[in-house]
This record gives sequence, structure tokens and C-alpha cells, in this order.
Amino acid sequence: MPPIVTLTSDFGLRDPFVGVMKGVILGICPEARLVDLTHDIDQQDILGAQLALESSVPFFPVGTVHLAVVDPGVGSARRALAVQSAGQCFVGPDNGLLSFAFKTPAWTAVSLTAEHYRRPHVSQTFHGRDVFAPAAAHLARGVRLEHFGPLVLDPVRLDLPAAREEGGALVGEVIAEDRFGNLITSLMAEGMARLAGGATVEVEVGDRRLGPLKASYAGAEPGVAAPIIGSQGRLEIFVREGSAKAILGARRGTPVRARPC
Amino acid sequence: MPPIVTLTSDFGLRDPFVGVMKGVILGICPEARLVDLTHDIDQQDILGAQLALESSVPFFPVGTVHLAVVDPGVGSARRALAVQSAGQCFVGPDNGLLSFAFKTPAWTAVSLTAEHYRRPHVSQTFHGRDVFAPAAAHLARGVRLEHFGPLVLDPVRLDLPAAREEGGALVGEVIAEDRFGNLITSLMAEGMARLAGGATVEVEVGDRRLGPLKASYAGAEPGVAAPIIGSQGRLEIFVREGSAKAILGARRGTPVRARPC
Amino acid sequence: MPPIVTLTSDFGLRDPFVGVMKGVILGICPEARLVDLTHDIDQQDILGAQLALESSVPFFPVGTVHLAVVDPGVGSARRALAVQSAGQCFVGPDNGLLSFAFKTPAWTAVSLTAEHYRRPHVSQTFHGRDVFAPAAAHLARGVRLEHFGPLVLDPVRLDLPAAREEGGALVGEVIAEDRFGNLITSLMAEGMARLAGGATVEVEVGDRRLGPLKASYAGAEPGVAAPIIGSQGRLEIFVREGSAKAILGARRGTPVRARPC
Repeated sequence: MPPIVTLTSDFGLRDPFVGVMKGVILGICPEARLVDLTHDIDQQDILGAQLALESSVPFFPVGTVHLAVVDPGVGSARRALAVQSAGQCFVGPDNGLLSFAFKTPAWTAVSLTAEHYRRPHVSQTFHGRDVFAPAAAHLARGVRLEHFGPLVLDPVRLDLPAAREEGGALVGEVIAEDRFGNLITSLMAEGMARLAGGATVEVEVGDRRLGPLKASYAGAEPGVAAPIIGSQGRLEIFVREGSAKAILGARRGTPVRARPC
Repeated sequence: MPPIVTLTSDFGLRDPFVGVMKGVILGICPEARLVDLTHDIDQQDILGAQLALESSVPFFPVGTVHLAVVDPGVGSARRALAVQSAGQCFVGPDNGLLSFAFKTPAWTAVSLTAEHYRRPHVSQTFHGRDVFAPAAAHLARGVRLEHFGPLVLDPVRLDLPAAREEGGALVGEVIAEDRFGNLITSLMAEGMARLAGGATVEVEVGDRRLGPLKASYAGAEPGVAAPIIGSQGRLEIFVREGSAKAILGARRGTPVRARPC
Repeated sequence: MPPIVTLTSDFGLRDPFVGVMKGVILGICPEARLVDLTHDIDQQDILGAQLALESSVPFFPVGTVHLAVVDPGVGSARRALAVQSAGQCFVGPDNGLLSFAFKTPAWTAVSLTAEHYRRPHVSQTFHGRDVFAPAAAHLARGVRLEHFGPLVLDPVRLDLPAAREEGGALVGEVIAEDRFGNLITSLMAEGMARLAGGATVEVEVGDRRLGPLKASYAGAEPGVAAPIIGSQGRLEIFVREGSAKAILGARRGTPVRARPC
């Protein structure tokens, strides 16, 4: 089974940065299958990149290598990491971007210091090409983690906002929006289910009260904001044939509350 | 020969939806070759997606699987289809999106109901990931159509606008525009040739009369709208070094007429 | 080792043009590995496409085929080329786009005239699909250059702007900007090093004097424009946590000077 390498970055697709990383990867591991998750992460939006990884990684087979580069500190002393976690590998800067990999109890991380697995000349501005892509390719080829450098026990962790229970309600916030204007929140399906315990749940976004959870987009009135458990296992707010973001004027950080009714 | 799976959607490339579908496909059929047709279909623009398929499918080899997801009815009772037609396969919602596949006399369609070929948990909002991608991957692996579910004899068909003859003229409309501002019309090259019967043909867009058909972009004056038979076998209107869309103020639905002169 | 074919164009990703070229390539060379460099070259911006190639080609392995289509003269008498240079191949229109390939002393170019290596019907508007993609695929399969058509000894060359020495300074210009608002210049790292001879170098953009070269993005003050040797071996101007383009109001053609101080 040919190894899969996914790529996530804030490089965009207008410049050839992503293509260049792929050239480097294929030069080292010609049989690698390359899959773009997204390269339209907002500049230096580590949280957005984490969400992209969170919603994608569980759908890739064991052995996949995930290369992620959102790297405001490129050229500084921040470490470069490779991580093994739950049967997959992660490569990227040590700035919280890979926090997803540290959620399982058993993970191993190393600092990418071995010169043998970097490009011969490492630029100060494009470690995606010179450090991370080569590491991802060598991992895909089967090089063992311990060959890349010393163990890292204290990687930077930057957890996604989490919802909390407060007076019988689950309280969180909007953490992202998607192309359709759907609002992704920090309230997880399990938390919602635990809260409800079988009862109907009512959702508020900012000071707007929405109706109960819908089972599908098609189950809502066009133009009216409604909550649903989205495909990422998170509470989402959508508007059928419209944009919840526009209609609610909500954005990252807008408070979201769910309570049984 | 490794199987090809193409992907078409209105998911955009900002969110990782497309990458996730690819992860699901490669988990099932690791040797599949994945080709994006476009993911920038306007939201829920089934007509636009059909045009993308029409202009692409003939250039893919026999055995290709085309996965198309523009799916406003996700989670409703609309069926999910797999279709075999002219040596290729098509997978997508039963909302007219796959009409292209029903143009040949011999096609076979089934409803994707077999649980064995879906993801174990099917979300209500992302059948691209949970239903269509697995089906496309299993088809690419060689699973026979009849294993996916019962035959469908009455798929939804939504034909592209067609031109009609009217008083010696061929009358149709603008149906799309491309990145260069070229206007794609419902007048087909064959209809134009039949109409002309060797004579010169004059084209009108809205109430603007254009000159005769050009043989190439380079054969037109810069800045002047002119008709040409485009690479999709359709009458197109272009402006050399400019945008026909902007200069003519035309849009989907603007009438287009061709008559011998 | 499966052959790599890269694709560069001004086709964008909204229309399925790029996907169609990939269908044609895989139909001819099923094992080809396809890598997009960029398809967001500004319309007919041959200089921009050259820069994309320049910054990408050195990072691909020997044997890679680079397909580049920015082709305002499609359908005119301009020739179609295949070029072998420094162990890689290049395919595209003879309009200067492939100038990069002629920088090495030993190159061979042919005109793509052999009908056997084109699509049976060649449209007047989409040679990317009908002429260039098939040629790239046949090259990737190992067909020798001389089979495609007669030698070309006088390809169109359109060199990128170069810096010149003037009164002890190196004088050039901004030639591009990237997604991050960084300004790419015509001053190369080697010229800068020769000029400096160990001394500190001071950079001016337009009439704005910047400080000395930074070693990394992280080494600059946020919000202040600073020079750096970028990953392409060119002098670049950046603003940490900002856009040099916006802050300096610079654009392609803005003069840039470097002098020892």
C-alpha cells in the first residue's frame, strides 16, 4: 500500500510553494500519494489549521503522514517536530499546530535535527520545503522516528477552545465558519447528548435563540438559522439556502449556549 | 492500469472537505489516481456542475469513476446513485447532477443502499464523505454496480438548456462564463454547421450584433466581442485581451441567436 | 520510479480545464504523478509563470516533465515546443514562457508537429488539452524528443529582469509579490554577496531606505519592512506580521537598490 502524505498550510495556491514541497517529497519518496487538506488557512491561523487536521485525520488510514506548515516563527529557535500518534505521523513546527497529535495518551515526538533528513541547504524562510517536506517523505519511506533527532517531551500545546457546563447549560463559542457560512462551535456532540439526557436541547448564538436541533439541513426552513450536529461531531449552526454567518452576524468567539428545555 | 477517480463539488478548497473524501477513497482503494475537475461550482449550482462534467468526461479513459457532489438535499429522502454509462461510472446524488450519464442509450443506475459500501456511521450532512466517496472507491476497486443496491429506472434528469431553430435562425442562450470572461452558450457546433450549410453565420448576443465566426482567438481584434466554436464544441463569445462578459454585460440566460447571412 | 508531470497555467481552478488536461495525460501515461505548481498565474502573465518555474524546477528530480500553458497566441502560428534541458523536460508555447530551460548551455528543443502525439482533433482554443498535455504525457512515457517534430534553434526568449551594477550599487526592481505580501526582486543572492564582499548591505525600495539584511523573518520588528534573502535565492522585502506590498506601496517595476554601507 503506497504511503499517503497529506499537506496543510497557509501558503495558498497562487504561489508554487505547495508544488515545490511536493517535488521535494516525490524526489525522496516517489511512490507517496499526496493529498491536500487545505492551503487556504488564514495567515498564521494555528487554530484554523488544527481544526482542519481534527476534521480530516480520523478519515485517513493508519500509516498516513500529515505535513502541516503554519509557521510564523520560521527561522527562529522554535523546534521542528515529527510525531507518531495513534498509528499516524505528523510533521510541522512546534508552535501548537500539532496539538491534535497529543490528545491520545501514547505519542512520541522528536525534534528534526538530523541533517541527513533535511535538504543540504536549509533556507531561513521556507522550512516547509527544506525541513518539513523531506522529513515527511522520509517518514513515508519508513525511516523510524528516532533517526530524525532527540525526543521531545514538552511540545507546545495549544488546545482548541472547549465548552464548559454552567448552570445546567453547555457554554462555548463559535470557532470557525465554513464555505457555506455554517458556524462551527466548541460544543461537541457527546457533551450535547450528555446534557440533554434524552430531552430536547435549545441553542442560543449570541443573544439569538434558535429552535431545537435539526436532524438534517433539509429539515429546516429556508433562511432560518438552526442548529445541527455537523459532520465533524461538533454543534454547527446553519441556514438552509443561506449563510448562518451573515444572518446571525456571528464570528469566531461569539458565545454559544445549549440547554435542555 | 490504476483506476482514476475524478472529483467535482461545490465544497471549495478552503475547508478540508475534499481532502477528507480523498482520505476515504484512498483508504478503500489505495491505488486510485485522484483528479479534481473543480470544487468551485457555485453553491448548489447543479447546471454548472453538469457543464463541468460534460466538458471533462470525454477526455478521461474508459473505466474512470466520476464522483460529483452538489447536494442541497443531503440528509433528505433523495436517493444516492451510481451509474454506468459509456464505459465510465458516475456517483452522486439523484438530483439531476448526473444527467450527463443518461444521454447514451445504454446506462444502468442503482441506488446506493448497501450498508457494506458506506461508512459505518453515515452523518446527516456530509454524504460526500460517508456515502459517495466510499461508493466511488469500491467501484474503482472493481465492485460490480449491482452490489450497491437496487436498480433505478427513473433517475432525476435536468437537461442543460438546448438551442432551437426559429425562422431560419438558431436561438439559445448564455449558459456559463469561464475564468477568461468567455461566454459559453447553448448553441452546439453541429447545430451551427447544419444551419450554415456552408454559408457565413452571424451571431447576436442580446441586442448586440457580432461579426462572423472566428477561427481562433488570435484572429479577432483586441477589445471586440467575437464568436468562436470553443473547445467544448459549443458556440462561445470571447474578447481578445478582454472579457466578453464585462464588455457585453451578458450573463446566464442572455439570449443568443445565430443566422446565416 | 514513476514519471512526474508538473502543471503550470493561467487557467484557474474554477473551470475544469486543468482536470481535463490531467485526464488526457493519465489516458496516455497512467502511471504519471501529477503535481500542480500553480494555475493562478495572472491572465497571460508570461513573466509570472517563468518565475513560478524558476522557483520550482530545481526542486524536482531528474526526468520530471514540466507542462506550462500561458498562451495568448493559441490558434495563431506560434510554435508549440518540447525542450530537454538539464535532465528535465519542458512543454509549452513558444512565447518566452520556457526561457528558463534555455539558461543552461545544453538544451534541445523541437516543434510539436507530429500528429501522432497530438489529440486526433486539435481545437483552435485549447492546445493545453490537445497538443501540450499529450506531448507531456508521451515524454513522460519515454518517447524521445526527436519524434515530436523538427529541431528548433531559435526559440523565443524572454529573460526575467536582471539587476545591474551602477556606481557601486546593485540596481534592480520588484518583479513579483507573494501571498504574504512579500516583494520578490531582480537582485540575486550571489550579486548581493559579491557587492557586499563581507560588508553590511543597505537596501532601498523606491525612495524608502530599509535597514540591513535580516537573517530570518523572526529577526525583524513587526510592522517594519526589511530585506532578506528569500527561499528562491532572490532579495525579498518582507514585513513581519504584515504586507511589504501594502506598507511600501510597491509593485512590479518599483526600483530596488542595494549598496554596501
